[in-house]
Amino acid sequence: MTWLDAVKWSSDGLVPAIAQDAATQQVLTLAWMNREALERTVATGFAHYWSRSRGKLWRKGEESGHAQKVRDVRLDCDNDAILLVVEQHGGIACHTGRVRCFFQRLEQGAWVEAEPVVKDPAAIYGHD
Amino acid sequence: MTWLDAVKWSSDGLVPAIAQDAATQQVLTLAWMNREALERTVATGFAHYWSRSRGKLWRKGEESGHAQKVRDVRLDCDNDAILLVVEQHGGIACHTGRVRCFFQRLEQGAWVEAEPVVKDPAAIYGHD
Repeated sequence: MTWLDAVKWSSDGLVPAIAQDAATQQVLTLAWMNREALERTVATGFAHYWSRSRGKLWRKGEESGHAQKVRDVRLDCDNDAILLVVEQHGGIACHTGRVRCFFQRLEQGAWVEAEPVVKDPAAIYGHD
Repeated sequence: MTWLDAVKWSSDGLVPAIAQDAATQQVLTLAWMNREALERTVATGFAHYWSRSRGKLWRKGEESGHAQKVRDVRLDCDNDAILLVVEQHGGIACHTGRVRCFFQRLEQGAWVEAEPVVKDPAAIYGHD
């Protein structure tokens, strides 16, 4: 029984993983981890996730440079959700070029883009 | 097309929903919402979730009194995760009697209970 066995992976082998900025306390991202992603996150000190859309393991920032250095790894009371407290490299967590992914705010029955794009996504991914 | 239709519910009709304390910025809970839970959350101003274990909709705090008054509702860039910024009634979000659910911290290969029980769970749920 290792610490990895304590995690209650869902039927598809995943758990949700929240990343929170250590400096600003902002909730940056919600991504998914399988066992290998969590193992590599802890082994390397940098956030790794499982991409459900691409069907592969990825290191956050491997293309963008916007890596997440992990300061604290937390597990919730039911053992089925992870919280990472991270140093967000480049200050941008979202692939849209915003500081974080949770930029859509519900206002009077509509989702409003409440936070600015701070870096051109084309520049982030080198496709410009 | 309403704001509810913008959310990309998973194949089981759910999305993960993070609750963050408006005062302390702590990440309190990770729970699950179906369409009705999100609709009721916005209609009432108090967090509602879908319990996967009990297979029912519930209003956070309906038994414990530890309701979450919603100040801000956010949707992420992929439209498949929710962030609620909340006022946590009673200051306790976790059914274990701790301030929040993410109290297990990974330390040298083991999950350590890093935050104290501040209220007896038996007292919270009236089963003492």
